[in-house]
Amino acid sequence: MKILEKKDVFRGQLLNVRADRLEDEGGRETVREFVVHPGGVAILAHPSPGEILFVEQYRYPVGETLIELPAGTLEPGEDPLRTAHRELEEETGYRAERMNLVASYYTTPGFTSELMYFYQAGDLTSGAQRLEDDESIEVVVLRREQAMEMMRNGRIRDAKTLIGLLMVFPL
Amino acid sequence: MKILEKKDVFRGQLLNVRADRLEDEGGRETVREFVVHPGGVAILAHPSPGEILFVEQYRYPVGETLIELPAGTLEPGEDPLRTAHRELEEETGYRAERMNLVASYYTTPGFTSELMYFYQAGDLTSGAQRLEDDESIEVVVLRREQAMEMMRNGRIRDAKTLIGLLMVFPL
Repeated sequence: MKILEKKDVFRGQLLNVRADRLEDEGGRETVREFVVHPGGVAILAHPSPGEILFVEQYRYPVGETLIELPAGTLEPGEDPLRTAHRELEEETGYRAERMNLVASYYTTPGFTSELMYFYQAGDLTSGAQRLEDDESIEVVVLRREQAMEMMRNGRIRDAKTLIGLLMVFPL
Repeated sequence: MKILEKKDVFRGQLLNVRADRLEDEGGRETVREFVVHPGGVAILAHPSPGEILFVEQYRYPVGETLIELPAGTLEPGEDPLRTAHRELEEETGYRAERMNLVASYYTTPGFTSELMYFYQAGDLTSGAQRLEDDESIEVVVLRREQAMEMMRNGRIRDAKTLIGLLMVFPL
């Protein structure tokens, strides 16, 4: 496969899309469109043993209010560990002494470069949320059993949250 | 929240992006950009007890060859059950007598509307792949224990595949 052209076809406030022209092994020319993404983090944090921090927010793209693990996007060049600390504090007010990388994975490799770093956080101290102007996020603390039940009944239905719960707390 | 304008800002061969103008509760105007997606399916299929079908393919957006569950995108108006049968056969050649919906979830609700339907398939009969011109997909059959080990060591690192394995085979 040979890259003939890397082409920015959309640059927005949040999303950047590329449509690269490629030549495959058979000499055919194809176009590959994808969302260029700097990477993301998701954090499974325990305010006390047996409890997990979630955030509840309206997600415009899907038209629903979802319960999710705290998460966010890397700033350009930012170390994902730093992003994890930053996003946990911004979205929930909690600071974590311990932040361990559990896994990293591609969210939807068919159409975005996004690599997600999944952390588990402990030794938390609470503080105040620091949200951006257009963010409205409610912090929800659930017991592990509640969260697992909400996953089974479909109330929790966000991929990074499913992966976080399932990797750390097998069904 | 009030929608002031729904605006198509990019229409490509694969991706469509919208940037809608909204007015939030405080009267502030914001823009929400997202990839409009018709929905997807992923299939955990068993050619024999203890074995799982995977597909291996180069994923240009992430620059890696990934091992994933067979998966695909809904045609406009298509029933996801039909998509699951179609994509399993196209990508692997296998037809399934049984196809059960295990769960549905949002892949990345921050920037796309994609809802993923996750199926488990049984009673398979093998046949020939039917790939599109620009697809190059290798079918890989792994034993369940191999797959779980490849998940633990990071060789399997695709979100829909992690969710499929973890939901059906707890760690």
